[in-house]
Amino acid sequence: MKDLVERLYPICRSITGDGVRKTLEIVGELIPLSVTEVPTGTQVLDWNVPREWNIRDAWIKDPSGRKVVDFRELNLHVVGYSVPVSGRFTLAELRPRLHTLPGLVPYRTSYYAETWGFCLTQEVLDSLEEGEYEVLIDSTLADGHLTYAEHVVEGETDEEVLISCHICHPSLANDNLAGIAVAVELARWLRDPRYTYRFVFAPGTIGAITWLAANGDRCARIRHGLTLACAGDPGPLTYKRSRRGDAEIDRAVTHVIGDRILDFSPYGYDERQYGSPGFDLPVGGLTRTPYAGYPEYHTSGDNPGFVTEAAMADTLRALKEVVEVLEGNRTYLNLSPYGEPQLGRRGLYGSLGGRSDTKTAQMAMLWVLNLSDGDHSLLDIAERSKLPFGAVAMAAKDLQDAGLVKEKA
Amino acid sequence: MKDLVERLYPICRSITGDGVRKTLEIVGELIPLSVTEVPTGTQVLDWNVPREWNIRDAWIKDPSGRKVVDFRELNLHVVGYSVPVSGRFTLAELRPRLHTLPGLVPYRTSYYAETWGFCLTQEVLDSLEEGEYEVLIDSTLADGHLTYAEHVVEGETDEEVLISCHICHPSLANDNLAGIAVAVELARWLRDPRYTYRFVFAPGTIGAITWLAANGDRCARIRHGLTLACAGDPGPLTYKRSRRGDAEIDRAVTHVIGDRILDFSPYGYDERQYGSPGFDLPVGGLTRTPYAGYPEYHTSGDNPGFVTEAAMADTLRALKEVVEVLEGNRTYLNLSPYGEPQLGRRGLYGSLGGRSDTKTAQMAMLWVLNLSDGDHSLLDIAERSKLPFGAVAMAAKDLQDAGLVKEKA
Amino acid sequence: MKDLVERLYPICRSITGDGVRKTLEIVGELIPLSVTEVPTGTQVLDWNVPREWNIRDAWIKDPSGRKVVDFRELNLHVVGYSVPVSGRFTLAELRPRLHTLPGLVPYRTSYYAETWGFCLTQEVLDSLEEGEYEVLIDSTLADGHLTYAEHVVEGETDEEVLISCHICHPSLANDNLAGIAVAVELARWLRDPRYTYRFVFAPGTIGAITWLAANGDRCARIRHGLTLACAGDPGPLTYKRSRRGDAEIDRAVTHVIGDRILDFSPYGYDERQYGSPGFDLPVGGLTRTPYAGYPEYHTSGDNPGFVTEAAMADTLRALKEVVEVLEGNRTYLNLSPYGEPQLGRRGLYGSLGGRSDTKTAQMAMLWVLNLSDGDHSLLDIAERSKLPFGAVAMAAKDLQDAGLVKEKA
Repeated sequence: MKDLVERLYPICRSITGDGVRKTLEIVGELIPLSVTEVPTGTQVLDWNVPREWNIRDAWIKDPSGRKVVDFRELNLHVVGYSVPVSGRFTLAELRPRLHTLPGLVPYRTSYYAETWGFCLTQEVLDSLEEGEYEVLIDSTLADGHLTYAEHVVEGETDEEVLISCHICHPSLANDNLAGIAVAVELARWLRDPRYTYRFVFAPGTIGAITWLAANGDRCARIRHGLTLACAGDPGPLTYKRSRRGDAEIDRAVTHVIGDRILDFSPYGYDERQYGSPGFDLPVGGLTRTPYAGYPEYHTSGDNPGFVTEAAMADTLRALKEVVEVLEGNRTYLNLSPYGEPQLGRRGLYGSLGGRSDTKTAQMAMLWVLNLSDGDHSLLDIAERSKLPFGAVAMAAKDLQDAGLVKEKA
Repeated sequence: MKDLVERLYPICRSITGDGVRKTLEIVGELIPLSVTEVPTGTQVLDWNVPREWNIRDAWIKDPSGRKVVDFRELNLHVVGYSVPVSGRFTLAELRPRLHTLPGLVPYRTSYYAETWGFCLTQEVLDSLEEGEYEVLIDSTLADGHLTYAEHVVEGETDEEVLISCHICHPSLANDNLAGIAVAVELARWLRDPRYTYRFVFAPGTIGAITWLAANGDRCARIRHGLTLACAGDPGPLTYKRSRRGDAEIDRAVTHVIGDRILDFSPYGYDERQYGSPGFDLPVGGLTRTPYAGYPEYHTSGDNPGFVTEAAMADTLRALKEVVEVLEGNRTYLNLSPYGEPQLGRRGLYGSLGGRSDTKTAQMAMLWVLNLSDGDHSLLDIAERSKLPFGAVAMAAKDLQDAGLVKEKA
Repeated sequence: MKDLVERLYPICRSITGDGVRKTLEIVGELIPLSVTEVPTGTQVLDWNVPREWNIRDAWIKDPSGRKVVDFRELNLHVVGYSVPVSGRFTLAELRPRLHTLPGLVPYRTSYYAETWGFCLTQEVLDSLEEGEYEVLIDSTLADGHLTYAEHVVEGETDEEVLISCHICHPSLANDNLAGIAVAVELARWLRDPRYTYRFVFAPGTIGAITWLAANGDRCARIRHGLTLACAGDPGPLTYKRSRRGDAEIDRAVTHVIGDRILDFSPYGYDERQYGSPGFDLPVGGLTRTPYAGYPEYHTSGDNPGFVTEAAMADTLRALKEVVEVLEGNRTYLNLSPYGEPQLGRRGLYGSLGGRSDTKTAQMAMLWVLNLSDGDHSLLDIAERSKLPFGAVAMAAKDLQDAGLVKEKA
């Protein structure tokens, strides 16, 4: 996954443009993608698809002709969606257009107000002498398209699980190349699932809105969903609940990752679009360190050195466990509900002997029998018994094989 | 407010009598009052209006003829509702009728059992020598009236907010002259409210019962209410929930004052009458240090030196905020509920730029949009977002002006 | 109670056999018992009544002919349900059949897999020298009966309270002779109750299942129930909630014993059978130190020296209080629900004067009046007011005598 992050890192992405297309082309080498191009001006819910932005070069040369800021070194140096400019400016004229942080290049955009600007470290700015500077931004802002892509893993049913990644950030590794890389691996891992899994790779906000505008009727099929971002930093996994707060996805992720759980808020990633009141989809947000929660956030510090393969692997592991909970969360009926059935007679104690986790397996069996009254799913049982979902699901399977429970119709 | 407390302090109030009338006359100079006189013997719910008590003088003279206890120095010296007495008693005969505290004169009454007595400090009692004492209580206990008063601020609707103060305590400043003084200022501050505000100034228990007996049909209009007492001591604000526990007034006051919240109990001030099960009105109790919670409570220590203008101003400020929550707590409908509407296009980001509280205002707008699904009031939104109600209400107004939300019918 | 524990201790009980009969014979000297014998092979729910096991003698003699393990010294020395054996074995052949603990003789059984074995301390095993040992287990495993008994205290109604004790453990004092002894005393204490109290003395698991199989139609009458075990150790009382979790028995016991409350789990004593999903009876579990929670558990350390009369008396006291809550938990209607009724006029303040608990009694009266709206039982009121149930019940009685409340039909 780190390889993919490093490969995608240099590309200058934005909410539209060739950087997005190039990114999807590379992702498409790993998993089949269906790419959609939506023309500038198309109305999407309350918004309109903006003009497409592309950029070839940009720099600032000091009075001696030396490039002091160079887009080709780091694409964060240009404010996203900067209109083209070519001219000479005094440093005083430039200053309001220069965005800085101590030791870091900040990430700035101006999608809907036409302007231009550069980002650089405070130290570079401080080193500049008064005088006339030459400035070039060789960009175009013109009618074109907004691009998004989908990858679908067909399941037994057309009920869907949505995994959504934003793909609009230029050279930022954790936010969100790590999310993209983890999503790709999750997609490759899925095999013959019960649910249909839909991976949406779209620009943040306007991309999600564009996808929602085109898929309003599909939303009724979405049973569970996650936005996936900041998936590779060294911090622990954090989950932000969906707007509903107690949806099955909320409970499944909580069961898997434990107690770093945040309440929903209408800010952050595209869970805020999926969770707008008209849609109210059960889509939570999975990250490691959450949105805006680390100093490298939205700066040049969020580079491939900030994310680790181990962290991405841990995110992937958790996602697989979440998928296993969603896939396996059925409700069973105890067919012998009066008193405990005699497990020994059926070899269900004997079958436990060979396992190292005998005690857990035995407790899981008793809990599944006790709570399989038609009102409790396996996730309910795992929550109440405080046993791992996997142990509960295995117990249900063993009991089903023994004819002691059956799946509720 | 301190001036009013000091002016009312010397008056000898009780549950009936001229002290109450004199008090209401002074309050009536500040806000118009409608005064009701209810004759002795009138049945009021399970009670009967008692005889009216008035007192002109009372003292104990020691064997040398010196007044050792003098009602004219402090009206707490006489047990409230003492029957008239004039005679000579040995100290031993007097002792059972003398109530003391170390360093403080206690406040005692005997409304429904005919008796007489005096209150004094333990030190004065200890200084008395054996011998014959001359005693006078020049009081009358006779058919008359119970007096209460109302001040009404008419609102757009006839739904009412009840503010109730007890006015039966003689020279006690915090309990409840401070409450009366704050209520008067609140009444003067109200301008063209949505709700009709009814201020009831009535004797404790029997006064509230008398008012309820006469206003049973009005109770259905009462949407919110507070008893107001102990409003001027230096302790922090404390709220006692209404019997319902989760009424809008409970949530509004909790939102304003934070975490010093007590559960309802059928003891304390007249919230216990308003909260009797037949009425079950949503009336909580606002105090600073609560009922019986300070050493000066019901003693000569509760004098004007115990209450401060600053504390009363703080109580008034909180009450105004509570009123603003009640007045402004509407439910809106997001008219663009699918995805977030584009706020920038409508100048709603721009309009934020000039505010120092930009971030709060922006979050408030997103929260109002997200939760204005018809099921959440602005107070719901303030609670869930943990934003100040004022910020949420301002966001709703801005969004309404922009045509993005409308008030729910 | 300690006497009964000591008298029952030497008897070799199991899930069937003469040890159970002898135990019930002794209990029957103290309270009348109705004994049921269920033949081997009878189907009981998912199980069948097993063969009856009886044992007369058992020992191991070392090569010198000395008895190194002797059933007659301690019946725990033989694995319960051991099949008969008589022969000579080398120590190596014996070892797999010898169960030990350091310093303690463990308690082992093998009800449903035919085998035999002995239990001894690790120290005794370590002292044995290699050589040939003579072994005798003079037992019979043959068709017979499973024996259980009931004691019923008839109440005003046929709604039942179930108290269930397991009687299948051989020489183990806390688990469960102490439980039996406390149950006997509780039964002797009950006089003309409202509920009918049914005490079930049955072998664990198979006994409860056998009783349930025979009493399925009776279950609908069971309003509350407890399993009673480990009732005499020095630890504090602990309650394990019924499967329902918030049944009246759960709330009653919690009110009485406070905060040592465990959630239900389908493990432990026979609450797991009563709480199987088909029955779902409101039966919790009362113990001192809970199931498997002390080092002496299921060893020779659980002998009469481990249990104390004081601990059993404390368990009995708590049970009596629980019974008082269940018996007294009625719902009343305030007949004067508008405002507080005038208690003084009815002598209800005066009546308080003579009590040392005046303040509590007065508060209880106000709480009963305030919450007797038909929706709150006395236990609800005790919980909300944080007053002892007894004070609340006494207040209700006084108010009923005064005509201020009546029991809800």
